[in-house]
This record gives sequence, C-alpha cells and structure tokens, in this order.
Amino acid sequence: MAEGEFEFIARRLRPLAGAPGALGLIDDAALLDPRPGTQLVLTKDAMVAGIHFLPDDPPDQIAQKLLRVNLSDLAAMGAEPIGYLLALARPKVIDDEWLATFCAGLAADNAAYEVSLLGGDTVSTPGPLTLSLTAIGDVPKGAALLRAGARPGDDIWVSGTLGDAALGLAVLQAKLEVEEPARENLIERYRLPSPRLALGQALRGLAHAAIDISDGLLADLGHIVEASEAGADIHTDLLPLSDAAKDLAGAQDAALSGGDDYELLFTAPPSERDAIEHLVPKLRLSLTRIGAVRTGSDLRVVDANGRAIEPTSRGWQHF
Amino acid sequence: MAEGEFEFIARRLRPLAGAPGALGLIDDAALLDPRPGTQLVLTKDAMVAGIHFLPDDPPDQIAQKLLRVNLSDLAAMGAEPIGYLLALARPKVIDDEWLATFCAGLAADNAAYEVSLLGGDTVSTPGPLTLSLTAIGDVPKGAALLRAGARPGDDIWVSGTLGDAALGLAVLQAKLEVEEPARENLIERYRLPSPRLALGQALRGLAHAAIDISDGLLADLGHIVEASEAGADIHTDLLPLSDAAKDLAGAQDAALSGGDDYELLFTAPPSERDAIEHLVPKLRLSLTRIGAVRTGSDLRVVDANGRAIEPTSRGWQHF
Repeated sequence: MAEGEFEFIARRLRPLAGAPGALGLIDDAALLDPRPGTQLVLTKDAMVAGIHFLPDDPPDQIAQKLLRVNLSDLAAMGAEPIGYLLALARPKVIDDEWLATFCAGLAADNAAYEVSLLGGDTVSTPGPLTLSLTAIGDVPKGAALLRAGARPGDDIWVSGTLGDAALGLAVLQAKLEVEEPARENLIERYRLPSPRLALGQALRGLAHAAIDISDGLLADLGHIVEASEAGADIHTDLLPLSDAAKDLAGAQDAALSGGDDYELLFTAPPSERDAIEHLVPKLRLSLTRIGAVRTGSDLRVVDANGRAIEPTSRGWQHF
Repeated sequence: MAEGEFEFIARRLRPLAGAPGALGLIDDAALLDPRPGTQLVLTKDAMVAGIHFLPDDPPDQIAQKLLRVNLSDLAAMGAEPIGYLLALARPKVIDDEWLATFCAGLAADNAAYEVSLLGGDTVSTPGPLTLSLTAIGDVPKGAALLRAGARPGDDIWVSGTLGDAALGLAVLQAKLEVEEPARENLIERYRLPSPRLALGQALRGLAHAAIDISDGLLADLGHIVEASEAGADIHTDLLPLSDAAKDLAGAQDAALSGGDDYELLFTAPPSERDAIEHLVPKLRLSLTRIGAVRTGSDLRVVDANGRAIEPTSRGWQHF
C-alpha cells in the first residue's frame, strides 16, 4: 500500500529537516533566524516531468537537479545557502520506492551543501510529476551580485566549460552519438549541475554583474547587457569546451546557446584580472575570459577570423 | 498569439512585484532585509486544478485562494506577511485573458494584505494547471505561535464559523441544494478564505498553541493535541455555525470535519478569557470557546446531552 501524506512526511521528509527552525515539519510554517548584517536571498524554480527532466532520469538525480538549479541562482547572487521548501505534486505512477530514492538524493545534497529542508507541501495530481523548490540563502547586506552592474570595459568571464549539458541531453534523446567515457561525462553534466557557490561568494566585491547560465550563454549574457544597458562582444575561439565536447560537431553551438550548464557568467574590470585568476587554484575551477562589455545595446559574436557571425539559435534546442 | 514567458513576466508579473527587494523580477533571486528583532516565517502550499480548486472557478479567486491559504499559515504562527514567490505550471488551455484575471486577483490581494510578489517561475505543462506559492512573513523573535504549546486546562477557541467552506463546495458539486442568499455565502467561503492575520498577531502572548483549520476541525485539533501530548473534549452544541449553515442537514458534520474554513483554532488558559473576548469587537470577528484541553491523548466529541459521539468522518468529504 502506498504511504499516505502524513506517513511520507514523517518517514521520508522529516529526516531531511534537521534545521531547528524547520520545527520537525510539525507546524504550519518554518522559522528562520536571520544572521545580523545579512540580507535574505530567495529564489524559486519549478520542474515538470517530460519538460525539465526525463521521466526515466534517476529519482535521486531529479531531486538533486531541482535543488541545485535553485542553489545556482543563489550562487549567481553571491549568497550562501541556508535551506529550502519543497512542493511535490505526485501522480499515481510515482511509488514509494521512487520517493525514497528521490529523498535519498536530497539527503546527499543536504550534506554536500549544508542545507536543510524547511517545509513545503505534497499533493496528488492527475498530471505529470511537478516539482517546485524555494531556496533561501543570505548575503552580507549590500554585497549581492546583480545582473545590472556590467560596465563598458569589463571583461566577460565564465566558469568551467560550456555546452556539455545540452550535448548530454542530445545523447539521452538519441540525437547524438558519443563514445565512452565522453558520453557519460556529458550526461552527468546534464543531470547533475554543480552550483558555483564558492565562486559566487568569492566574486563579491570583484564582479560588477553575474548570472548563472541556465538558458544558454547568449540568452543569459543578453539578460546582463539588457539589465546593464550595455553591449558586448564574445569570441567563439575563447569559449571553454570540455575534453568530452571539443571534438563534437555542434559543440560551439551548444556552448553559445545550450542551456542547463549552470556555470557562472560574470563581468569584472580588467584591474581585477589577477585577483580572479588567483581564484582558479583555490576553487579548483577554470575561469575563462571570453569577451568584453562595451557601449551599445547589441550582443556580437566574433569568430576566430575576427568576423561577426549570426549564431544559428539563441535558444539552443536543435540537432 | 499567446504571450511568451518573458512578456508575461514583464507585462503581468512585474507590476505585482513592487517591493524593492523583488529587483523588478530582473535578477536570479530576490533580496529581503529582515527587520531587527524578528524571525522570518516561511510556508509553501501547492494547488492542482481539479483537486484543490475547480477548473471553472474564477481565475482571480483561484489566485486569491492560493495566496490566502498561505497567508493563513502565517496567521496561525502569529506572523505579519511580507511577500511571496509564485510558481505556475501552465497548460495550453490557460490563455492570456485567464492569466490577466489571475494576476488581477493577486493585485487586489497585494493591496489588501500589503504584500508583494518577490519572484518565482512560470513553466509549461502537459498536465493540469499546477500552482505553488511560498509566503514569507516575520514575527518578533520567540513570539511565534506553535502547535505544541497546548496544556491541560486550556480553553479551546475557534474564530468565525465552521463548516461553511465544505458546504459551499458541496453546493458547487451539486451535492447540496441551498437557497439564496445562503448559497452564495457558502460558495464564497469556499472560494475566498479570509486569513485571520490580525487575530494571529493579537494572540501572541495570549494563546498557548494555534493552527489554521484547513483539513477540518477534528483533524487540525488532532495535530495540536498530538504535538502537545494532550487530550481534548469539544462540545457539538458550542460549534459556531453561520446563519447560512445552521439549518442545513450535514452542518454539524461539516463543522467537525469539513476543510477549507481557514479559521484559527487556538488554546489559551482560562485566565486570558477576558483579554480574548476583548478582541472580538476590536477585530470584528467572533471567537467561540468550544471545549478544553485535558490530560490523555484522545480527542472526544461530546453532544448536547453530554454523551461522547463518534463523528462520521474525521476527513470530511461525503454528502
């Protein structure tokens, strides 16, 4: 017999709610003691089976992706995560074992990211599994990284490598054939993003603007230049590609327009180059300058020959 | 043509996000400055079309119900509301006009309850409309009302009248025939709960325990006595029934076991009776003593003849 809602909460969710303010999930709401001198940072993302993840994806990784895409939003603001509230609309096809594995994924990430479940709601649905998560973090007052701070002359930086997640999705959708071990590397990048929390926190006071790359480099850089009322040039030959991606057809398109990488894109003045490069060994994370902010309002992509090119798509979804 | 996500956010949602910390919904997350000496209070409820509301319910009232059930959780903790994050999973059948009316409902309640949209997410779904809302409020540090504080000897109080919402739902489902104006009164109680925020705040320091009645009186009193490790007696002849409900067959069952009333249930020592009765004219809200907390661990329902009765249902759903 399927667990009822109260049994599910008591057996599966309560162990995830270690923070004292979660009140053991017994009360109507959670309590949170703000740290003096901080602002709270709040973000909420929703995911629907068949749209934001594949119904066959491992349940623990679905849970981790849900949490991590929200933590990535906190990372982009330079925040430290505290906890989260979860809403889960459950179709009948989701059984207790599925939920147990889902919760095991949250337990692993609670430990990895030092966060706690704080509350939420579980309901039934005749539709697909629908998840939403609200993540809460904090940041020293006034130190949050915003999208609107980019200034002409700033370098444009990205963390890690770009395009892997979109290529991993294409592999899962059988639109792209890749040999091992590259195949597994790309799939893991799609299923398990790594929110760049330590980088976001280290960029406070260094970066002028930041965003996480969820919609794709061009789309998200577009958000930065629009909010900052500036233009930008980026150079295709500077795009950081992984060993798994670099020899694949479509890698450059994926790097420009593929979503789901959850790397950080940020701008900083050239005077901070040394400070930023010092972060690389400390965080064990590559950081690459891919272009510059300038006056204007357009976003220009320049190829290895110095020619402006028109990318095939700004919202990458084809193969 | 349907509005895209970005257009919907800019045109419909941004006007709802007046708080400075909402950052015009431009950034990855919202910022919130906690008031000194307060704790944050966080709650999240989800609603699915066809389960938590009827697909034909007016869109503005669906929005208001979604917000208000969350505000009711804040009320039960004695909190003042600040703002909310919204996730909306939209099926194709939901058109721009529907969304405009939905947002107009939020705008009305933003003004009524002095809250602001702070952020969220809109996604598409092949399933039914699925909504989740995370509400944030604050409370003076240490003053939150909890479920676990009830003590033997406490009076048990409820605000307003009970059972109306369940009767209103039965009317909408054509399971119950009622004449006007009672019909409209009951339907409105189902569609538009009134979170008892002023009462919750006034009960800080007076009440030992509180909860909002969303699952039904017996179920929610059950949560209080379980969390407080106590027992309770309630008296059916003391249950407050509205003029619309009092002559209907099933009114007592609805008052005992019907959900969706969103009145507050609280316990307080007899020494606070005067103080609590003084709240009635101030808040223009009836407050009724319906029983008492005692030692033990069971919940006993006593009829007008002083006999213990077994209610027909503890999760009221039949007619």
